[in-house]
Formats: sequence, structure tokens, C-alpha cells
Amino acid sequence: MRKIGGPSLTGHVGSETSVCAYERLRDGRRESYQPEENVVRTDPQQPHGSRIDLYVDRYADRARSMIASEIRALFAVAARPEIVSFAGGSPNVAALPLDVIGNMASQLIAGHGSVALQYCPAHGDPGLREKICEVMALEGVHAHPDDVVVTVGSQQALDLITRIFINPGDVVLAEAPSYVGALGAFAAYQAEVLHVPMDASGLIPEALDGAIARLAAAGQRAKFLYTVPNFHNPAGVTLAADRRRRILDICSAAGLLVVEDNPYGLLGFEGEPMRALCADDPDGVVYLGSFSKTFASGVRVGWAVAPPAVRDKLVLAAESAVLCQSNLAQLLVREYLCTQPWREQIKIFRELYQQRRDAMIDSLEALMPAGCQWRRPGGGFYVWMRLPAGLDAKAMLPRAVSSRVAYVPGTGFYADGQGAQHMRLSYCLPEPDRIREGVRRLAGVIEAEIDLRDTFGSGGMHGTVGVDTPGPEVP
Amino acid sequence: MRKIGGPSLTGHVGSETSVCAYERLRDGRRESYQPEENVVRTDPQQPHGSRIDLYVDRYADRARSMIASEIRALFAVAARPEIVSFAGGSPNVAALPLDVIGNMASQLIAGHGSVALQYCPAHGDPGLREKICEVMALEGVHAHPDDVVVTVGSQQALDLITRIFINPGDVVLAEAPSYVGALGAFAAYQAEVLHVPMDASGLIPEALDGAIARLAAAGQRAKFLYTVPNFHNPAGVTLAADRRRRILDICSAAGLLVVEDNPYGLLGFEGEPMRALCADDPDGVVYLGSFSKTFASGVRVGWAVAPPAVRDKLVLAAESAVLCQSNLAQLLVREYLCTQPWREQIKIFRELYQQRRDAMIDSLEALMPAGCQWRRPGGGFYVWMRLPAGLDAKAMLPRAVSSRVAYVPGTGFYADGQGAQHMRLSYCLPEPDRIREGVRRLAGVIEAEIDLRDTFGSGGMHGTVGVDTPGPEVP
Repeated sequence: MRKIGGPSLTGHVGSETSVCAYERLRDGRRESYQPEENVVRTDPQQPHGSRIDLYVDRYADRARSMIASEIRALFAVAARPEIVSFAGGSPNVAALPLDVIGNMASQLIAGHGSVALQYCPAHGDPGLREKICEVMALEGVHAHPDDVVVTVGSQQALDLITRIFINPGDVVLAEAPSYVGALGAFAAYQAEVLHVPMDASGLIPEALDGAIARLAAAGQRAKFLYTVPNFHNPAGVTLAADRRRRILDICSAAGLLVVEDNPYGLLGFEGEPMRALCADDPDGVVYLGSFSKTFASGVRVGWAVAPPAVRDKLVLAAESAVLCQSNLAQLLVREYLCTQPWREQIKIFRELYQQRRDAMIDSLEALMPAGCQWRRPGGGFYVWMRLPAGLDAKAMLPRAVSSRVAYVPGTGFYADGQGAQHMRLSYCLPEPDRIREGVRRLAGVIEAEIDLRDTFGSGGMHGTVGVDTPGPEVP
Repeated sequence: MRKIGGPSLTGHVGSETSVCAYERLRDGRRESYQPEENVVRTDPQQPHGSRIDLYVDRYADRARSMIASEIRALFAVAARPEIVSFAGGSPNVAALPLDVIGNMASQLIAGHGSVALQYCPAHGDPGLREKICEVMALEGVHAHPDDVVVTVGSQQALDLITRIFINPGDVVLAEAPSYVGALGAFAAYQAEVLHVPMDASGLIPEALDGAIARLAAAGQRAKFLYTVPNFHNPAGVTLAADRRRRILDICSAAGLLVVEDNPYGLLGFEGEPMRALCADDPDGVVYLGSFSKTFASGVRVGWAVAPPAVRDKLVLAAESAVLCQSNLAQLLVREYLCTQPWREQIKIFRELYQQRRDAMIDSLEALMPAGCQWRRPGGGFYVWMRLPAGLDAKAMLPRAVSSRVAYVPGTGFYADGQGAQHMRLSYCLPEPDRIREGVRRLAGVIEAEIDLRDTFGSGGMHGTVGVDTPGPEVP
């Protein structure tokens, strides 16, 4: 890995590189990374402010724990056409009826622009909140529209729930691994994340019990359990039906709020959607939903469903964060849900992602060298792959990008330094042929890496070897 | 004022009332308010969660300082057609070429939907950032597009700048009075706000000097000065040209960052736009801009311009807060700025708001009883009016709403309990005839209030009399 001397805590990365490159703080040490092929644009026009940070001693404590997401950082590189990107979780919005949606937007603005282009209540559009309740009914949730708070994607719901519950040092329980954006939100409010292991059936109840007991023994109680029960990001697993009641009972007995993050619940490839945790314990669960994966990520419409007292605080927090959501975005989603066959569109998405899942799994089986391990996801966007011993996914990434394939290294999905031996492969965006080509390139990179390891040993390869990681055990 | 027993800290307000009513915490005492005409909807469908707050002992400390904005709380009432609302700062988006904008949205989605409906970098669309630099050039700012961070309205920029700078207990200097949304953001991060007086020429340099000295004497230093230099919300005044250099010098000498919030700078009724503070000290100023008042509030597009190191932190903070801005909203604004005569549209807005300003000032002069004081704003949306001695704008509000006129009481614009004798009157949304009618109604309410005061004395009227407030002295 080529280390760029680059940005100190206070330095300016320059021009476009802050998008392409990433920095992260681990154990108090700031690392910077820039993909090998990336060229720093030297722009004749200078930024108008100084490159020296005059405010270095002035930032809030929480600013120190704000770290760049490895996913987001990769977007600029991975978007280059010659690269097969398994990096982002970008949905295939091109499969939407774009003409129809364009017409809807046009009529909304031309016919109702004085409402659509105006401020609105922070709680969210009441008509959209009604439609959201219809969507959630597919997973057994019978919420009232008043229970729903519309947010700027479900990322904002994550931010707000953390904002209202977390004091610095408070503990959040989260699966190992966990969604990188959730870890970013928790870090921004200085939460301590305690990871709880998963297996092929999702979060392990006994491990959750054990984590709660260990905290109690230390005189601590977590503020909430963060879980992605369906088609987990990044692990790809789903919480088994017979574990759901068990998890709820454990949390209820411990007085532990559950934050159920469910962007992929309707994107299962077989059978009916699983029953949401929230459906069986509305007082014990805050449910987070999103239209990013079932409609379009670019409108930034998500939501939270919460017990009334928590809901009231979420509305206040949303108001101080953004005043209100975009009325245009909300009315566009509402109009789409009211007039378009959205259930059929989700079926189209499911079939499309299933084909891509198959293309990826078939290629992995055909091409990956021995020692690589993965599991076939039953829905969603992601395959979580374990590399052979001694390989480090983050250290290997520059070579992968040189070979025109991108992924997200596993370390971004842990708050505690695990994950070096894992990577997340997203099959949601590339066409099946491109997926096969990408897997071919990736297999070549991994084979070369294995050769290097066998020749020089892993210690000589990267300077440091990643922490061995349990992850969800792969069969 | 009819006090509703209503919501305790943990109670549920019920159905739609959380939008109509408001709660606020002042001096540790929670007040609740519900306009007299508001009826609590009893909805046969129950919320799915318990009305008892199971998490009352679990919230973060900052959740205690999240208070509902008095402006937002009034929206549902003030939006009723029989009421002349001087309450909200809602721009007159109906004056936009809605057909044209509708067509733009349609073509954007139909022709470029796979980009417009997709995720984008947290920094914001590069093309939009270029156009934002063109807009700022009108106020003498020569920023590089890299200096700009696109945000969910400038409210999000306020939230993010507070997030990266404020530890609980840190001091923010802010004008007396200050924008209620900024005070909400500061409160959400547990800042202490120290108000600095204004006069007819805006923030008083000597008073700023004095506040900095008083803090220094107490061993403290403020994290930043928050100022709205042009057509102040709510005070309506503009920082005089000869004070701008002086304010920058004072802040520079004290090592004090300036947060320049400038949503109204292009909406002056006479002469050219004032030169932004940021234009003369790019290292010492974070500039916040917005398209809410010059284009449309419903797209929620604002921005911050900051020195590179601060900018980098803002991008990280934005990413953890919302992942990214809506690409659709950004591309719509970009397209509007690239293809439409936006300078001419701002001229249309200016003339429209000037007529309304004139209608309001003329009516105030013709109808208000002796003892009411106000100043003629040179731009923007607001008249800040001082009531005769002994009157309390918040206590009077239910009677005003009964008389079908609404405004925002002055107390919302102070962090320290001042403002009881003031109100903010927005002339941006009602037609001139409605403005005249609304002022007529309001004059009647104030006259009746004066009669009450003269008959019973102010002590007997409301139980408590508002704190006398300096505000910006009115000539």
C-alpha cells in the first residue's frame, strides 16, 4: 500500500482529493489513503481561505471522532467507467419508470408548486406518513401515521436517534459487523460500540445475553441495540424467525431499546417478507425505514417509527437539524405510492437483484481461490467475503483498484479494529456480465496476493497484519 | 392566556396537536401552549406504541435542551385560511415560473434519472457549487467551488457548524434578538448564548468588544459570533458598511470565528447588495447561504463556505448526519441557475416584497396605537415591533389568533428570557390587501390589550409580566 504523507489532522487535502481519498482515525492515529491511480488535480484557482487550520484548538470533542466512511470515500474512484465497482450500495434506479416519475414531478411543481416548493411541518407530510404505514403493513407493522417521522434518508433517522439518546461514552450494542453509516453516526456522538456476534441466522441471542450481562457486571447498561435484521449490510444474513421473539424478550427484560434498521426487508428473493421486530413490540423498538432501495436514493426520504414520547423528541431534533424535510421530495414519493404500482416495481427490483446475486455467487464459486469464504444472501445487496488467512482487504485495495475492481474493506464495518480479513461485495449496481468480469479481476488480485503471502509471508507484505476477525462464521 | 394542563416532559400531546401546540423549557420550567381555537382531534385509531414514556431516564442530556420553535409551532394554526399570518418566514414561491421549473424537473428525471435519483458525494454537486460561487460573487465573495459544502437548507449548515465547534457549556455570541432556528441549533448542542445588543445600524461594535472582554475577564472565550448582517431576522436591521471592517477587526483580534448567516442579502429594496463579511476575511468567517428565499424553500438547498480545514469537517459531519444531500434537489437548482434568468427572478421577488413591506409599514403607521414602535426594514421579510409598556406579546397571542391574525412573539428570539414586549411581523407571504386587514385586526387586539392594562394593570393580566427587553432601540 502506497502511503501518502498527505493530510495531517489540520492539513488541506486539496481540490477533488477529499472525495477520492479517505482519512480515518483509529486508536488515535490518523491514517490517510489515496488509491494508486488517483491523480491530485492541481487547480490554478486557489481556495479563498487559508490552508492552515486557524481553529485547530477550537473544535468540539466530538469532531475528533468524525471519520470518513470508507464507502463514501471510494465513490469517486469506483465511479470511473473502467472500474467494476462492488463498493457502493447504490440501487439500480435506472430500472424505475423514469418518464412516468418525471411527469409526476412536472405536474406536482406546475400544479401544486406553491405547496411542493414551500416549507412544511418537521414531522413530515401527513399523506406520505399514511402511505408509509401501508408499506410497513407488508412486514406486519400496524403503525398510526402519527407514529411516523419523515427523515432525510434513514441516515438522518440514525443521526437523530443517536442525538436524543447518546451522551459521550454511552454504550450501543451492534452486530459484528455493522452498517458503516450507523457506526459513523454513533462515533459522531461519541458512543462506545460493543459488537455482538452473528452467525448464519443473524444476531446470536446467547451472545446478546452475554454482552448485556458483561455490561451489567461492569455497572453499565447500553442505551440501545442497533440491528439490521433483514439481508444484513454488510453480512448478508437474516435474523431467523425463531430468534426474533427471543431477541425481543432479552431486550425487554434488560430494558434495552431496539433500533431496527430495515432498508432491505422488502428485497428478499424468496417467500414473503419477514415480520418486523417492531410488529411484535412497538414500545420496545424504534423502526427505521427508507425509500432509497425500494424507490430512489436521490430523493433522500426515509422514516422512523417510534413510541409517542420518543417520536416527539425525534421531531424536535429533526427541526433543529434541518427545519423540515423537502416537501417536493415527500410529495413526489407520496404521489408515486398513490398512483404507481409500487409493489410490482419492488418485484422488478427483487428479480433484478436476484439475477445479480446469482451472477456474483456463481462467479465466486467458479473463480475464487481456495480459502475464500462467503455465504449466499437471501436478499438485499451484499456478499460478505472472508479472505484466506494472512490477507488484508484494506491493504489489498490499491492493487484491486489498479486491476479495475473495487470493494469495501471489512474494517469500516467494525468500531473496534476487526474486519481486516473481510470485504463487502455489492452486486446491486453492475450488470451480470460486469459482475462476472469484476469477480474474475478480483480473483486474480487475490491469487497474486496469496502468491505474495506464500513468498514473503504476510508480515513482510503490509507492515501490519489486520486483526483476525470472527465476523459471522462462514460455513 | 388559557393554560392547558397538557404535556409533561414525558407526556404525549396527542394526535395533530404536537404540530399546533408548542412546548418550551425556560429556566428549567416546561411551559405548554395551545392556541385557543385549536381543537384536539380525538382519533379513533390509536398510535401503536404506549403513551407512557418508557425511556424517560434514558435520554441524552442534550435532549433536555431541545425546544420547539415558536415559529414552527404556529404554522398549523397560521395556515388556516381565515387567519392573516405574519408568523412564518415562508417565501412567495408562487411567483416562480412553476411551469418552467416543472419541465426542468421532468427532463432531469426522464433524461438523467439514473444520476438525479442516485446518491451523490456528501460535499455536494460540483456543478451546483460552481453556480453558488457565481451567486456569492454578487456580494463580493470570490470563493472556489471546493470551499462550498451543500447542505439541507442553511439550517443544516447551522447544525453542522455547531456540531463541529460546540462542547456543552461553550459560549456563542449572538445578536439580541437572534434567528430562532439558530438558537434551536445552539440549544441542541448545549451552547450558552450570550446576546450582544444591536441598534439601527446592526450589531454594536463597542458592545461586541465589551462582551468579549467580559468573557475574557471570566476566563472564557466564545467559540464563534453568530450574525445575520443583512435584513436581520427578526430585527430587520442591516449592519452598516462602516461597521463591517470594525466587527471583523474585533473578532480577528480576539481569535473569534464569525458565522455569517445571509439568507436575505440579495433581497434589499434599494441599491446594490452589501459586501459580505466573508469577502474581506475568508479565513475568519464561515458564510451560510440559502436558496430558500431566492428560489424555493421546499427543495431544502443551502450551503456553507468555510476555510479548507473547517470545510473538511463540515463534509464529514454532513455525511454522518444525512449521508448526502438530495441529488435531485441539487440538480434542479443547478439547472435553474444555468438556464433561467435567476437574477431577474430575484428582482421580481424584491419588488414583490417591497410592495408588501410598504403595505405593512403604511398600515402600521395608520393604525397602530401610540406606544407601538417599529423600524422600516430596507429588505428581507420582517418588521420587529415593540409593544407599549406592560403588554406581553406571547400572552396576547391567543387573543390575536382569536381575532384571526398571527405573529411570532419576541421571546423565541432570545436565549435568555428577553423579548416579551416584542413581536416579529413577516410581510413576505400575504397579499398587500391581506396585510392591511391583518394589521387592522392586530391594532384592534393591541388596543383592547391596552384597555385591559389601563383597567386592571399589567400584573393582573397575565400573572407574570415579560422581562423588559432592550432589543434594537427603535427611533
